[in-house]
Amino acid sequence: MADSPKIIINFKTYSESSGEKAKQLAIHAEEVHDLSGVDIAIAPQAVDLKAIRDVVNIPVYAQHIDPISPGNSTGLYLPEALMEAGINGTLINHSEKPLKLAAIDEIIEITKKYDLTSILCSNNIRTSAACAALNPDFIAIEPPALIASGYAVSQCEPEIVSNTIAAVHEINDSIPVLCGAGITNGDDVKAALDLGAEGVLLASGVVKAEDSKAVLEDLVSKI
Amino acid sequence: MADSPKIIINFKTYSESSGEKAKQLAIHAEEVHDLSGVDIAIAPQAVDLKAIRDVVNIPVYAQHIDPISPGNSTGLYLPEALMEAGINGTLINHSEKPLKLAAIDEIIEITKKYDLTSILCSNNIRTSAACAALNPDFIAIEPPALIASGYAVSQCEPEIVSNTIAAVHEINDSIPVLCGAGITNGDDVKAALDLGAEGVLLASGVVKAEDSKAVLEDLVSKI
Amino acid sequence: MADSPKIIINFKTYSESSGEKAKQLAIHAEEVHDLSGVDIAIAPQAVDLKAIRDVVNIPVYAQHIDPISPGNSTGLYLPEALMEAGINGTLINHSEKPLKLAAIDEIIEITKKYDLTSILCSNNIRTSAACAALNPDFIAIEPPALIASGYAVSQCEPEIVSNTIAAVHEINDSIPVLCGAGITNGDDVKAALDLGAEGVLLASGVVKAEDSKAVLEDLVSKI
Amino acid sequence: MADSPKIIINFKTYSESSGEKAKQLAIHAEEVHDLSGVDIAIAPQAVDLKAIRDVVNIPVYAQHIDPISPGNSTGLYLPEALMEAGINGTLINHSEKPLKLAAIDEIIEITKKYDLTSILCSNNIRTSAACAALNPDFIAIEPPALIASGYAVSQCEPEIVSNTIAAVHEINDSIPVLCGAGITNGDDVKAALDLGAEGVLLASGVVKAEDSKAVLEDLVSKI
Repeated sequence: MADSPKIIINFKTYSESSGEKAKQLAIHAEEVHDLSGVDIAIAPQAVDLKAIRDVVNIPVYAQHIDPISPGNSTGLYLPEALMEAGINGTLINHSEKPLKLAAIDEIIEITKKYDLTSILCSNNIRTSAACAALNPDFIAIEPPALIASGYAVSQCEPEIVSNTIAAVHEINDSIPVLCGAGITNGDDVKAALDLGAEGVLLASGVVKAEDSKAVLEDLVSKI
Repeated sequence: MADSPKIIINFKTYSESSGEKAKQLAIHAEEVHDLSGVDIAIAPQAVDLKAIRDVVNIPVYAQHIDPISPGNSTGLYLPEALMEAGINGTLINHSEKPLKLAAIDEIIEITKKYDLTSILCSNNIRTSAACAALNPDFIAIEPPALIASGYAVSQCEPEIVSNTIAAVHEINDSIPVLCGAGITNGDDVKAALDLGAEGVLLASGVVKAEDSKAVLEDLVSKI
Repeated sequence: MADSPKIIINFKTYSESSGEKAKQLAIHAEEVHDLSGVDIAIAPQAVDLKAIRDVVNIPVYAQHIDPISPGNSTGLYLPEALMEAGINGTLINHSEKPLKLAAIDEIIEITKKYDLTSILCSNNIRTSAACAALNPDFIAIEPPALIASGYAVSQCEPEIVSNTIAAVHEINDSIPVLCGAGITNGDDVKAALDLGAEGVLLASGVVKAEDSKAVLEDLVSKI
Repeated sequence: MADSPKIIINFKTYSESSGEKAKQLAIHAEEVHDLSGVDIAIAPQAVDLKAIRDVVNIPVYAQHIDPISPGNSTGLYLPEALMEAGINGTLINHSEKPLKLAAIDEIIEITKKYDLTSILCSNNIRTSAACAALNPDFIAIEPPALIASGYAVSQCEPEIVSNTIAAVHEINDSIPVLCGAGITNGDDVKAALDLGAEGVLLASGVVKAEDSKAVLEDLVSKI
């Protein structure tokens, strides 16, 4: 049974979301979840997964897993090892880690085998439809040009969000769509939900905020 | 000041060297180091680094780091985050994670900046010479065909080892050379040292052994 | 208006389909087309495209184009340059040249802009459905394990072909499906058509045949 | 026996150096060679190689070859096929087509086997030294930041050129060094030669010039 995140915080590889700071950010996310009841999931770096898992009970996702079985794959991300560290799911095909179509398919099969929540990222309406055919738990549309731009996709390019949802649901209307890129506040989240998105994916808006907990509180305030 | 490992255990992505088992294997490596005085280093998966660092005092290496600075690099290995988890160095360009020449150079610069031990892997004599020009702390020659073969490079292809050492030292005679591929016992290690190698790099020979501690004890027995 | 190939010969990078031999093979394909009336298309190496275009009138496809515009992309395949050499279309995402999802999408957009026939290759039923959502002119399913195996997908794994067609048509029933891998004779072609495929994609069965023209004649004999 | 180009024109994938225009540019290069006696080589796109080879007698290089043997490598550049089209050599590892270290080594071995001139590109002083250890016919240093910048490496960053030559020659003093990036006129070429470079590699300076023949004449004017 997949999670139902309304907000996914992608920790990426920022200093502010590495190591001890990552742990602190994870705790903030859990606190805001506990207070608001809004489902928040986090995607820290692999190296920080276990320490974060040990301190929070919200869903923790990998930023990427490799489509490999245990064996000799030096330097790759073994799904089973990340599961032992406690992941509940994984981002797949983020625009900063774009994957071959065949690899995306293999990774989704792995997530199904292990009952991991799959968040398949897409970069436009057409590829979102293709992603829908692969049947992930969630599709997260993020126009690359708006990532970390400060311009929220849900407010500045609302038709991308609504047209993506339409395109995805024409293929499979049971797949919830998240949207991301430029999301920084509660109004952006509300706009996304009003367009039919199930939630949002964001990174710098929270991670690089001076007061990330305040941003998290604002993000959930209009849900 | 770089470490001086005689034996590096690459944990790769085997089940036997993931999670709790990785921690146990690391402890065995430390125990054998403590008893024998032989420098043993280990290279676990990123997800296991911190938990292993917390329980052993021998050098712990990453299997790979990406040539990136903190920022938006979803799914990549941030050097600073791995350092916070406690790595002392990193493997670079393992044949299972082969890198572009420009990336190898960038990674070595990062290791120098942060005083991390760099173990630059090479696949043949010619590329070992090229590696020497990049001035890493160690060069580890591993003919891919012999990896996990059961045929020790130091015994079955001794001229690869000695010719690699000669080629490396012609470029820079202060770079120690390790050799790997097929190493499983103390005789293989002794043969490597006799050929002029400073030590060995191995994986399955230890990781997949029924009694990995016994193998480790044998590996150091003739040094 | 896209071509309607029943048989596509992928020349790959065999000696038997390079240079002068490629030209000869192209002429054979045209002769068999002229005699049989069956639409045959060929996909030679880029370096041979122009010389082949100069001697045959059947559709000539690139094996790959890069999603780039004219500019500074040393070593890549510029669509406009291949068009000037006379291509009518291109293979996309062959299992020997697998592409990132975003790149596949970009390439299909280029083929639409320039009215090139797009043959989007897929490796299994699931990815075929994803390909359908990208709306290429053709989808060509080729299970990698059967490529060059001598076991025709249409005879040995018929359910892969029929299930792929069903999966593609559930997304978009106007996209014709080709099948490939292991096809070597007219019976294999007939089996493919009987399963609902519009045609076949093959390589070694023709290219490496002692008498490639005879094979081509056999291939069209039961259509 | 390798060629001795003083000037290599990399045609890249510009419109101005594709198809018929590529042929015209090649003819200009030959004319300027014939008049001046200066060795000029050209590196057109693969698709244009044969048509250009048919009209000029100056050295023609590939922009890239793949380290493959004849076989099933859809979409790759087969060395033997490019040789049949008439190449005399190849660029390797251009910063727009960066390669893994092991692939560079394999390609150089192919060039040696077939007596092709190898122009190994490097991006800085350190990687140039590594390239020297691989023993190509030429090393061409091109700082990526200056490519197509209008700032000639030989005039704006002369110490990169001279330090590269020193670093290369410390490894192997028989390898001639070319330099590139930002070269547009005869003064840039002269500056390069004065620094000890054997010649220059350039692209946009000639390809995108309004009168490319005049630029070529100027380029050779001070050699």
